[in-house]
Amino acid sequence: MNGNPQVYLSSVGTALPGDPVDNAELARVLGANEEWIEVFIGTRTRHFARDLTTGEVRWSLADLCAQAADRAVRAAQVAPEDIEFVVLGTATPDTLMPATVNNVVDQLGLDQVPTFQLQSGCAGAVQALSLGRTLIASGEYRTGLVIGGDVCSKHLDIKRDLTKAAPSDLVNFVLFGDGAGAAVLTDEPSGERVALRHVLNRFTGLGRKPGQVIEWFGLADRHDDRQALTEDYKAIEEQVPVMAVEILWELLGELDWDADDLDYLLPPQLSGRMTRKITEQLDVPTATEISCVADTGNNGNALPFLQIERLLEKMTDGQKALAVAIESSKWIKAGFALERI
Amino acid sequence: MNGNPQVYLSSVGTALPGDPVDNAELARVLGANEEWIEVFIGTRTRHFARDLTTGEVRWSLADLCAQAADRAVRAAQVAPEDIEFVVLGTATPDTLMPATVNNVVDQLGLDQVPTFQLQSGCAGAVQALSLGRTLIASGEYRTGLVIGGDVCSKHLDIKRDLTKAAPSDLVNFVLFGDGAGAAVLTDEPSGERVALRHVLNRFTGLGRKPGQVIEWFGLADRHDDRQALTEDYKAIEEQVPVMAVEILWELLGELDWDADDLDYLLPPQLSGRMTRKITEQLDVPTATEISCVADTGNNGNALPFLQIERLLEKMTDGQKALAVAIESSKWIKAGFALERI
Repeated sequence: MNGNPQVYLSSVGTALPGDPVDNAELARVLGANEEWIEVFIGTRTRHFARDLTTGEVRWSLADLCAQAADRAVRAAQVAPEDIEFVVLGTATPDTLMPATVNNVVDQLGLDQVPTFQLQSGCAGAVQALSLGRTLIASGEYRTGLVIGGDVCSKHLDIKRDLTKAAPSDLVNFVLFGDGAGAAVLTDEPSGERVALRHVLNRFTGLGRKPGQVIEWFGLADRHDDRQALTEDYKAIEEQVPVMAVEILWELLGELDWDADDLDYLLPPQLSGRMTRKITEQLDVPTATEISCVADTGNNGNALPFLQIERLLEKMTDGQKALAVAIESSKWIKAGFALERI
Repeated sequence: MNGNPQVYLSSVGTALPGDPVDNAELARVLGANEEWIEVFIGTRTRHFARDLTTGEVRWSLADLCAQAADRAVRAAQVAPEDIEFVVLGTATPDTLMPATVNNVVDQLGLDQVPTFQLQSGCAGAVQALSLGRTLIASGEYRTGLVIGGDVCSKHLDIKRDLTKAAPSDLVNFVLFGDGAGAAVLTDEPSGERVALRHVLNRFTGLGRKPGQVIEWFGLADRHDDRQALTEDYKAIEEQVPVMAVEILWELLGELDWDADDLDYLLPPQLSGRMTRKITEQLDVPTATEISCVADTGNNGNALPFLQIERLLEKMTDGQKALAVAIESSKWIKAGFALERI
């Protein structure tokens, strides 16, 4: 992988819908306990594309992705017509068809470009970076747009009475948020001048039960009373920290970097509490942690871009950063390495 | 694109669920008119993953994809452990998470491979071929598995009384089928020894209304009474044949092939009737048409693989084939070129 031409991240843009919703407000709407959210989730605020009181959908995923992408394109100081491909990673497309990426491209005013939409959870943004990197490294393209975003609104049923909901059910309503992020990738250093040194995206789920399942309903089964979101939190709590450590050392090995070389660490962003726990176990005290989930909620494929945005504010020339991501749905190991040149 | 290393298609495998359902049976279940299906759709049979009488789901998309992929891997005579990546194109994933591709990989007994799932309609199989081609052409991988499939069952509401449904509504129930297909791609000629000369995948939907929308329902909106499938058949009937001709000539130009060079033509597979109409307009009388939709129904991302399977039965050394595909959801031009060496 490292024998390929280098690929660079030129800029990042992000979009979070509306004002942050704090735990007091969320607890009030859901009939949940504020302190329970504080302690067991450890996330302070999140943003929703849907109005929490009326249920009205205020932003589509396409809207948020187009906003983030537009910011990334402007920040990269490339002309929109220089964008040669667009890749979107999401678990929650607006519709099954058209793929949301095509409505994003339409909103951006682009045409005649190849588009790809990757269906994926927490690993989707990394998969999008991986695909974008390969498209440029192949020599076919010079500049492309990579986007990640999720709008969990379709599963946020505010009409449900959750006052008596079990924690395993309630957690689905307090963990997530909505948002989008984007990056411009180029074949030569420009803008932020950050080299995308390596991307890891590997299925490791053979024979393992899914840690997370998110269903969708069709015309034929939408009135079924089955659960739409199921998490095996015990498996997640046990396995994700272990996998995170494995990914860290695997990435360092592939890159021939020492842990001491790391200036920044971008850990998995499950929730404020889980991220703190994972970061402790990753145990790279010399690296500065870059996290966002306590403020943004778990907004899936937006997270890595939100982390990169915070990273770029601090990163100076020659500094190195490593991101670790895990998709617990079917146990995908993911991560990437950045270096400002 | 043609300056890259060559990529080869080594084998194809397909899977159609259960027995073919003919128009008499479909008309009976839906309360529709058999002759209307014959004349206006022109499709004779299709296969469903769901039992038409009981509604019972008999095969998941993952089941069908794993079956097709297993057949492709066996036919290619590669060991499963030689498969270095898996790409799936679909519009109808089993769940939003895990991405279906990961359950397919699990069923195949593979582990530690990168997986990608592309959310796409009729262009998805071509996008999957495009991504597979780029992954191999990049030099990072030598052998990979590319899959396409769709199970429209979740929208096949057999409990609905369609006896008084408008044709625009009814058409959604008689056009589609379920199925999957797969191909093994390699960096050197092997198995079928077919070179994948070119892949076209281009968004052309700027400022154009979607020709097709397929919704999904979440927990919060699943009892809404909105339409799940909407098609602008007038736009499709008007624009798809024109776009098909444009794609044909564009592909020939890119490849520096003459229309006379073509031995086989794989036209878009909307329905028996539409495909006949498009093939007439493509007007390449010297090329043999390879179609399947009249027998398989429009099973989306499975179609190109079903066509390739029929093609390979006939194709001899040195012969050339061109496939044209169009995704009307947001007007994606797609296609690919094959040559047996």
